Amino acid sequence: MEEQQDLRALDYLYEVGLLKRYKRTGWVVAGVSSPESIADHSHRTAIVAAVLAELEGASPERAAFLALFHDTQETRLTDVPYIGKRYLKAASNAEVTEDQTVGMVEGLRRLLGGAEAEYEAKGTAEARCAKDADKLECLLQAVEYREQGTDTQAWIDTSLAALETDSAQRLAKLALGRAPLAWMHEARDSKPAR
Amino acid sequence: MEEQQDLRALDYLYEVGLLKRYKRTGWVVAGVSSPESIADHSHRTAIVAAVLAELEGASPERAAFLALFHDTQETRLTDVPYIGKRYLKAASNAEVTEDQTVGMVEGLRRLLGGAEAEYEAKGTAEARCAKDADKLECLLQAVEYREQGTDTQAWIDTSLAALETDSAQRLAKLALGRAPLAWMHEARDSKPAR
Amino acid sequence: MEEQQDLRALDYLYEVGLLKRYKRTGWVVAGVSSPESIADHSHRTAIVAAVLAELEGASPERAAFLALFHDTQETRLTDVPYIGKRYLKAASNAEVTEDQTVGMVEGLRRLLGGAEAEYEAKGTAEARCAKDADKLECLLQAVEYREQGTDTQAWIDTSLAALETDSAQRLAKLALGRAPLAWMHEARDSKPAR
Amino acid sequence: MEEQQDLRALDYLYEVGLLKRYKRTGWVVAGVSSPESIADHSHRTAIVAAVLAELEGASPERAAFLALFHDTQETRLTDVPYIGKRYLKAASNAEVTEDQTVGMVEGLRRLLGGAEAEYEAKGTAEARCAKDADKLECLLQAVEYREQGTDTQAWIDTSLAALETDSAQRLAKLALGRAPLAWMHEARDSKPAR
Amino acid sequence: MEEQQDLRALDYLYEVGLLKRYKRTGWVVAGVSSPESIADHSHRTAIVAAVLAELEGASPERAAFLALFHDTQETRLTDVPYIGKRYLKAASNAEVTEDQTVGMVEGLRRLLGGAEAEYEAKGTAEARCAKDADKLECLLQAVEYREQGTDTQAWIDTSLAALETDSAQRLAKLALGRAPLAWMHEARDSKPAR
Amino acid sequence: MEEQQDLRALDYLYEVGLLKRYKRTGWVVAGVSSPESIADHSHRTAIVAAVLAELEGASPERAAFLALFHDTQETRLTDVPYIGKRYLKAASNAEVTEDQTVGMVEGLRRLLGGAEAEYEAKGTAEARCAKDADKLECLLQAVEYREQGTDTQAWIDTSLAALETDSAQRLAKLALGRAPLAWMHEARDSKPAR
Repeated sequence: MEEQQDLRALDYLYEVGLLKRYKRTGWVVAGVSSPESIADHSHRTAIVAAVLAELEGASPERAAFLALFHDTQETRLTDVPYIGKRYLKAASNAEVTEDQTVGMVEGLRRLLGGAEAEYEAKGTAEARCAKDADKLECLLQAVEYREQGTDTQAWIDTSLAALETDSAQRLAKLALGRAPLAWMHEARDSKPAR
Repeated sequence: MEEQQDLRALDYLYEVGLLKRYKRTGWVVAGVSSPESIADHSHRTAIVAAVLAELEGASPERAAFLALFHDTQETRLTDVPYIGKRYLKAASNAEVTEDQTVGMVEGLRRLLGGAEAEYEAKGTAEARCAKDADKLECLLQAVEYREQGTDTQAWIDTSLAALETDSAQRLAKLALGRAPLAWMHEARDSKPAR
Repeated sequence: MEEQQDLRALDYLYEVGLLKRYKRTGWVVAGVSSPESIADHSHRTAIVAAVLAELEGASPERAAFLALFHDTQETRLTDVPYIGKRYLKAASNAEVTEDQTVGMVEGLRRLLGGAEAEYEAKGTAEARCAKDADKLECLLQAVEYREQGTDTQAWIDTSLAALETDSAQRLAKLALGRAPLAWMHEARDSKPAR
Repeated sequence: MEEQQDLRALDYLYEVGLLKRYKRTGWVVAGVSSPESIADHSHRTAIVAAVLAELEGASPERAAFLALFHDTQETRLTDVPYIGKRYLKAASNAEVTEDQTVGMVEGLRRLLGGAEAEYEAKGTAEARCAKDADKLECLLQAVEYREQGTDTQAWIDTSLAALETDSAQRLAKLALGRAPLAWMHEARDSKPAR
Repeated sequence: MEEQQDLRALDYLYEVGLLKRYKRTGWVVAGVSSPESIADHSHRTAIVAAVLAELEGASPERAAFLALFHDTQETRLTDVPYIGKRYLKAASNAEVTEDQTVGMVEGLRRLLGGAEAEYEAKGTAEARCAKDADKLECLLQAVEYREQGTDTQAWIDTSLAALETDSAQRLAKLALGRAPLAWMHEARDSKPAR
Repeated sequence: MEEQQDLRALDYLYEVGLLKRYKRTGWVVAGVSSPESIADHSHRTAIVAAVLAELEGASPERAAFLALFHDTQETRLTDVPYIGKRYLKAASNAEVTEDQTVGMVEGLRRLLGGAEAEYEAKGTAEARCAKDADKLECLLQAVEYREQGTDTQAWIDTSLAALETDSAQRLAKLALGRAPLAWMHEARDSKPAR
């Protein structure tokens, strides 16, 4: 019984590994030649969520935690591009999470189900920060791909318009006028080589 | 002043975006042809940390949080392979984190510095879970690359030997005998197509 | 009016170009590191369909034509993997084709709609050859990826079981015991270099 | 004997699979970082040929069929770039097709040889549509790569100048002023998500 | 005049840059998913040539120099795979080198033409070492790709059979029984981390 | 004993093969999507060195030889990006070369150690040409990546400023105003297809 529960936890870890293999579909459509994975996106989204939560006076740990899992249902739902949403009717994230966690020890099941429910309901400051983090991360990536030659203006506009918290809106506006590698050039100048 | 602090927060978000571009050096050395990024690895590591913490009776949010940032210093330190450690003397993670967070609003600075310090000190159950998550994630990935044709036995052995918590050791042993896609084949059988 | 119709024809040609960018999801899941595109798959499928039709006494041109378009709806439906079919309810190919061809000159609309309808209905020998071609092509690719190190046995088994025509079954059985590059080694031996 | 003929048909299917692996050399030279395969190009070329034939009053099935095979000799001749044509003297497509089909059942041999001969002779409306499709497809791809950052003007100019049919010239002119993803943005606006 | 000569020298440097973009065709055919470039191959070939020459009592600088340029004509001739050699008649390397160096200052022209001529004639110990280096490098790479999951036995056999010098034969035999990363594991054990 | 020395020579050849797998870190940071390898860079650097030496009246063979090995220590030191040099203190190239050549037959050891020492000391015309070749090659590559859509101005400026020889400075200035593929377009016009 316990081994069976461990096996389900392990299977979940293998399952979320798929997020490394799945490329973000929007960038594929945009023509980015080696686009980031869903895991790539989710990693920075969680960090953005922590930063936004700190700035908004919410819990950084909780906001990051919600963001960490916000796309984990895409192992089964895939990352459907905008055009696809007109043609595919998806099961709810709650249903997928239920299937992903069935047979796990009860604590884990509650932990993962709870994160999904809170994120979707958007009723807490942490959920709002995580949602904004998803959009802000997309905007930052769009700026970076623009620097690398691809036209991503549509993604920048859409992401910007969706932001709700003050902190996310402030950072987004700064981001549009800031070179993604500026931090590096400044760090090089201020710190001597060893 | 406030805008300057915002700019430093934004720069940090651009900086951690480098982790999507940097491939994990160990897999490059092993000959994996399109290896995962550091961000890919860090995303699942944070999820593994949450699972281990739940199983060990520690805080999943905190363990995931520590894991989320555990390789963020590699934007400046790079992911030095084992052979390189004989030839490169690296600054401490604390020094890098200090430089990464200078000029940020005080709360953020403490938040990021605190995560780094707790992880390195390994004095809490959450830090131990995050450390084990780093190793267990590597083991899972090594099993997956082995399925895809590359000889990764050395990585499996090293990761297995480094695990300290009971939960990580139990899951690792199960992982060695479990096909990474078994969950999918079982899910397909148990749930009809729509 | 005529220019508007031309524009719709042109848009369709841009749209099917997406099939070059979309990788076949099944191979992504299997862990193939640089998987073929849907266009790659569709090209050989059309050739397989022509060969099967010739062997079965059907029209090679028509069978190839049906095969050529058999995945063109995936520009909007995406290539949903098996696990996803449990969670996504897709619009019919007929509905997508209708949307893809709206506003085109009537002859084109009928041409593309007719190919879709015949393929789906499976009422003609050509449609059956095109369907078998889809499966046989997948089997050949699975054998090729197996040679390159990835475990694709599940794809071989599923494809083999789905074949209906005698010719496809005969070729599939031969394929399992034939090295994909054998033709090349034999050609090299039988023909001198210039 | 029959099995031997089947084997030759199978070998042909493995052989054309090489077209998925070979990248279009012109794009490699241009510096596109992950260029399309010959199969990618051939798939859309066949669709373009069908559309042009319909607009020109020729047989779409036949035009598509000719286009489908128009680069199949490149498994042995490779895709020689322009600069290479000054230094490599290639066997005729007829000779390669002869070698590719030797030992096949007579009907298949005639089918494949006939397609090659008709395409090369350019004596039919279908062959002219297939030839124009080859060029128009290249032009569309060049526009798409231009959107993604690479300078492909030379390819656009050359392709445009080579078009012979009215329909191809009309579509090409429209293509130069049409964003490749415009169809998608318009489809999103006109059709609600499910 | 002098600027014109400089321009021709510069053009040559841009031209040989194509060797970074061209993948080695044999590995593409074999199904290696991200094969090395011609430049990759040429770099190690030059190092192998230096080592063989030192072991054979010839000039390492000259052998490396010949090897460095041994595939530079492939910017125009491309890397024709074995099967292609039955269908493509190539201009001589001398003719290509002549065209590549026309208009250069006389000394450069002689330098590059002389390297080509000596390599082709195989009349010197250095040329023989460079030729063997080409084959031995291919064998080492084949062993490495074999470790990474692709079946490359045909390349190993062919390369081994072509070696002429004692040193190359000795090293090749050792290579077949030596793990490509053994040096690294041994280095790790013998030298402590900093 | 002799076999042991051969084994060390072989191990060195396997070791330098890592340079094909390691991508140039600077381009990864810049966001180039499929950057060149260290071996790619080293190959053209050696050719540039030969050209510069010929123009400067130094020995082309020796300059190319020094350039060929100029990054071979990076198998152990990795290609540390600028930002990393503030945080990583590296062993000297001499120490790495010493470790790479230990146990080799004495002649080889001296050969490789001598090349490293001469290059680092910069006391000979050949060493200066090889150093300039390293920078000029980087500049050429930066111009090429700029043509392909990435902003590489910082790399162009840095490389240009570092050049010391007259020949390198002359070629660099010409390179900034010369299209990387101009040679090809001119060659096509001046030489008829076969």
